[in-house]
Amino acid sequence: MPYTYDYPRPALTVDCVVFGLDGQVLKLLLIQRQLEPFAHRWALPGGFVQMDESLDDAALRELAEETGVQRVYLEQLYTFGELDRDPRGRVVTVAYYALVNLFDHVVRAATDAENVGWFGLDDLPKLAFDHRKIIDVAIERLRGKLRYAPIGFELLPKKFTLTELQTLYEAVLDQELDKRNFRKKILSMELLIETDEVQKDVAHRAARLYRFDRQRYKQLEKQGFSFVL
Amino acid sequence: MPYTYDYPRPALTVDCVVFGLDGQVLKLLLIQRQLEPFAHRWALPGGFVQMDESLDDAALRELAEETGVQRVYLEQLYTFGELDRDPRGRVVTVAYYALVNLFDHVVRAATDAENVGWFGLDDLPKLAFDHRKIIDVAIERLRGKLRYAPIGFELLPKKFTLTELQTLYEAVLDQELDKRNFRKKILSMELLIETDEVQKDVAHRAARLYRFDRQRYKQLEKQGFSFVL
Repeated sequence: MPYTYDYPRPALTVDCVVFGLDGQVLKLLLIQRQLEPFAHRWALPGGFVQMDESLDDAALRELAEETGVQRVYLEQLYTFGELDRDPRGRVVTVAYYALVNLFDHVVRAATDAENVGWFGLDDLPKLAFDHRKIIDVAIERLRGKLRYAPIGFELLPKKFTLTELQTLYEAVLDQELDKRNFRKKILSMELLIETDEVQKDVAHRAARLYRFDRQRYKQLEKQGFSFVL
Repeated sequence: MPYTYDYPRPALTVDCVVFGLDGQVLKLLLIQRQLEPFAHRWALPGGFVQMDESLDDAALRELAEETGVQRVYLEQLYTFGELDRDPRGRVVTVAYYALVNLFDHVVRAATDAENVGWFGLDDLPKLAFDHRKIIDVAIERLRGKLRYAPIGFELLPKKFTLTELQTLYEAVLDQELDKRNFRKKILSMELLIETDEVQKDVAHRAARLYRFDRQRYKQLEKQGFSFVL
């Protein structure tokens, strides 16, 4: 059943850059394509936008269909529309990104994906389309935003040690941070709640667990408070 | 000459939110639509993306065609794709925003625009489509970004007084700032170059003119410096 228009139209897709933290390594969720073009090449989960769904819904649907990952908070990243980015012709893609606690999600490949997996940023396979470029834009956005918004907590379990928090910042920013300085800065914002729990099953002395005080952050934000790390 | 596809495709447009500063008032560049839908209603400059141009090029072309504004730095804002945003059917729009020195640009309406004008943010007419929503997202982005990136200087002439700079911040943030505190913060970043010129043709004592040191900012940025105001 063909569809006919008076003027030519680009095809419209969505693609998802999903970040997860695996211990000290920042990882990305990729699928292996089943179909041409770029069959068997690794790529971002994504696909064509349907006429009866919003862009956000399309991104969530494709992510769930191809990787099994559901109930994540996706944020729109950027729309890529260079003329030569897809060998099938003019395809414009709206890219999204998400931060997840990797251990909360069991991934499984389905529909157009023959495989799915987490890859370290330093260990990415050769990618389809301009997906490497989309990933680079997502990393840049993540690095920038991590410094002025408390989004990093999305990558951690609900309760975490200060060392885990620093490790997350070091993994994303790809640089070592001074421990004393980092703790001073993060604690001075008074956005962490010290729980009465400590780590379990660790060989070294068990460290205190903290959680992020989202409610207090929202209050402070209304008062013009700036999160800066 | 109709165009036929196997699957339905949304139409794709671009829209431009252009901010300019008129003394103490932040203004927006709007066009009055010549054609249906929303004929004679005010709207953002924009239109359909052609198959042989990138999204950025489409935004620059539509802006120049409809308003005469050229050689501005447009940045992609967000892509809006709600199902009911256009009465013609499914139309997805990639929105851009720009900051210009309003006095550098002579505007004139052409092609699909029967009129063009600058409107104060507090004095916007009733707008076509979801353009009011797009403008709100642009204002939010501008307010956020003004605090952690030196983008405000784009709204000023090359040489400006500290009072003009503060007025810009107050106009965009829509709040009064403490003069002494503002000057201390901005001067402490050492990003302003004091020129040996003063204001001309003013009734009161002529104030010193400054310019933004873009080169120094780029160096500092590489070293991990954060602009925060």
